[in-house]
Amino acid sequence: MDRSTTGRPLSPVAPPFTLSDRAARTIDQPIGFLITAALANPNLISLAAGLVDFETLPTRETKQLIQELLSDDEVGRARLNYGPSLGLTALRQELIKHLAKLDGQTVEQFGIGPEQVVVSNGSQQLLALLTEVLVNPGDIVITAWPSYFVYTGVLVTAGAQVRCVDTDDNGMIPEQLEKVLREIEAAGQLDRVKIVYVVSYHDNPTSLTLSEDRRPKLLDIVKRFSKRQRILLMEDAAYRELTFEGQPPRSIRYYDPKLEHVALLQTFSKPFAPGFKVGYGILPMELVDKVGLIKDNFDFGTANLNQHTVLRAMTSGLYDRHVVMLQKRYHAKAKAMLEALQKHLGDYAKGDLHWTHPRGGLYVWLTLPSDYDTARDSPFFKKCVHEGVLYVPGAYCYGPDPTRKAPKNTLRLSFGTVALEKISEGIRRLATAIRSFR
Amino acid sequence: MDRSTTGRPLSPVAPPFTLSDRAARTIDQPIGFLITAALANPNLISLAAGLVDFETLPTRETKQLIQELLSDDEVGRARLNYGPSLGLTALRQELIKHLAKLDGQTVEQFGIGPEQVVVSNGSQQLLALLTEVLVNPGDIVITAWPSYFVYTGVLVTAGAQVRCVDTDDNGMIPEQLEKVLREIEAAGQLDRVKIVYVVSYHDNPTSLTLSEDRRPKLLDIVKRFSKRQRILLMEDAAYRELTFEGQPPRSIRYYDPKLEHVALLQTFSKPFAPGFKVGYGILPMELVDKVGLIKDNFDFGTANLNQHTVLRAMTSGLYDRHVVMLQKRYHAKAKAMLEALQKHLGDYAKGDLHWTHPRGGLYVWLTLPSDYDTARDSPFFKKCVHEGVLYVPGAYCYGPDPTRKAPKNTLRLSFGTVALEKISEGIRRLATAIRSFR
Repeated sequence: MDRSTTGRPLSPVAPPFTLSDRAARTIDQPIGFLITAALANPNLISLAAGLVDFETLPTRETKQLIQELLSDDEVGRARLNYGPSLGLTALRQELIKHLAKLDGQTVEQFGIGPEQVVVSNGSQQLLALLTEVLVNPGDIVITAWPSYFVYTGVLVTAGAQVRCVDTDDNGMIPEQLEKVLREIEAAGQLDRVKIVYVVSYHDNPTSLTLSEDRRPKLLDIVKRFSKRQRILLMEDAAYRELTFEGQPPRSIRYYDPKLEHVALLQTFSKPFAPGFKVGYGILPMELVDKVGLIKDNFDFGTANLNQHTVLRAMTSGLYDRHVVMLQKRYHAKAKAMLEALQKHLGDYAKGDLHWTHPRGGLYVWLTLPSDYDTARDSPFFKKCVHEGVLYVPGAYCYGPDPTRKAPKNTLRLSFGTVALEKISEGIRRLATAIRSFR
Repeated sequence: MDRSTTGRPLSPVAPPFTLSDRAARTIDQPIGFLITAALANPNLISLAAGLVDFETLPTRETKQLIQELLSDDEVGRARLNYGPSLGLTALRQELIKHLAKLDGQTVEQFGIGPEQVVVSNGSQQLLALLTEVLVNPGDIVITAWPSYFVYTGVLVTAGAQVRCVDTDDNGMIPEQLEKVLREIEAAGQLDRVKIVYVVSYHDNPTSLTLSEDRRPKLLDIVKRFSKRQRILLMEDAAYRELTFEGQPPRSIRYYDPKLEHVALLQTFSKPFAPGFKVGYGILPMELVDKVGLIKDNFDFGTANLNQHTVLRAMTSGLYDRHVVMLQKRYHAKAKAMLEALQKHLGDYAKGDLHWTHPRGGLYVWLTLPSDYDTARDSPFFKKCVHEGVLYVPGAYCYGPDPTRKAPKNTLRLSFGTVALEKISEGIRRLATAIRSFR
């Protein structure tokens, strides 16, 4: 052992761990500071958190469900045991019925069986599993511009090249997707395109829904560019059931009846309760086995009791009632936010300011005049904190596409967690900050 | 569109998906066929399944716990909401107390704080997370010979080089670990060694426990070979609390008080109920953040309600009582299995046959005479199925170390799931098969 000059043994210092390339690439999600800010000042109104409405969480209902699930000792035990990796058979069957119904189909018309359903730890895990199964470092994944930032984190860890496609009020623009794919093809990289990722209903962060007419168009483009290898159209429909205005379009999956190109992902976290952490999806048959094997590595199966709980919520009718209640509640909150925006910023909005009009989900996406900078370290952000309101800087929602430069003048507002009666005051504070920078 | 010679449009066939290297490497876990065999013949006695005793699953207790957790609407809602990625703060605190107590220490003596605890979807997820954070393809992970085969699956997906270390009745042999590390160093590969994996109590598959005197020795070797980069000693203590005979040794962690080299992993699946899918571990501080970020990618947090449930099980005293009950129960089952082995194979065992004597856990590891072949497709396996008994072929438990050849004459028996009264008959059938091949 080395000794210091005093002759006493030196405590040897352990050398550092060498991280994997995946870990080295993995970076902090840009939301921690928002939580810290919110905790530091309880008077802040957070329009940042994209969480569900606390008051809606089904405490009594869950208590009842679990009482029923465990009322018989013997049957109850099976619910506390291990279950199959890909999910409980009865739940997978029920989810087929559910997905068929959402698209206005019978189970026969739907045509896809429970063997193509995968139950996961929230839909996030299925995003991670599908990416793990398909994406090597350097492979290309195409997302919307802007898009869900937690999925961008998965792509960064995977070492994917991210390319982004412009959106408008009808969601991802098919002609722009085609343009990006042509550019990739011209660069000889088409075989590296693995996934086109679309949040198809009430997108996080914009609240925009991909319009019905664009759905078959996007699918057709993905098919046409699946030349030597197949591109997966990963349809994230996490907010689908939170539609509170109008009839939501059919899923993109609807246009791919044999489920060759589309994976449709949904969750119980948004329309029921995040505390169960149960999501699900239907996948092309070719991917199911590998996803299952990788899930064996991860955890060999989502918590069995939780799967039984959401299953019973569905079969008892409780789930459907809960969704209707949520739709009403979020509708009221969205309305309050839009009215407040009109009241406090309507006169200001003549072309210079733009916000989206959600018909579901939890968000409003605000575009300020082009000389505004909403970044975390900007004077504008500080001014908002000073006024007592928090938002998510829009810059976090633009993927790392090297051919693009993220705008600085956007921000995401959420009416999910904030109490209805605080929405107007939150927007008033935001408007004060916006006006002070004119 | 291409047209066939009849002039009708050909239905275009979608080209195949191109899998990632990780997915391409991922292979089926070798246990599916055992489940299929068990389902096909209900008269089979399965000594294969390494699952917990069904009769012990805490139905009534869980019902009570969840009633209490959700008795107040407001408090209950927080339990149905999202929680922190690394785990519920109160649970992480309680787990520190628990781990300290298991090592006979006060929390002050223990010295590691809740910020180093990570709660995961079973301990399996933590095995996957730590491997993901440290291991690049081609990096080296050292395991025991034999070792837990589901972790081998993780290593295969990661593209790790697996090197294995001989074991004896006292677990992994330190001199053999040193020998393997010297060989790796001589080959200029020492910087690629990332993890030494040890199941430290009642190992799966052998039921052997690493003896107390070997614990500091293994740690010292890992420290000495951490030359330019640190090697993680990953201590999997899943079966620790199922000790039913004698006093279990202190954890390897105990000898690394600053937690620089050891990650200690435990679970609620074995000592409580798998249906909650909650595991946990304490990690070197340097790894906690990255593990948390990768967990954000996977699922941003283990199901919150489940974490509250196991926490309440602990604080109410229910968990400790449950563990004592399990210890008694598995003790009785182990005793029945050992007595049956002695009765049916004792005369046969003079040097030619060897089985381990579990002091905890769920397994007995049987070594047949060297001319036996226990493989899935062997006449011996078929004979066992014909006699009506199932086991896990030992070959699955040897990692893919290219310098070694797996013995064919071992098998794993489990007394976990099988009913106490069927153990003797199961062993009698096994003995009949063994004798028939003499």
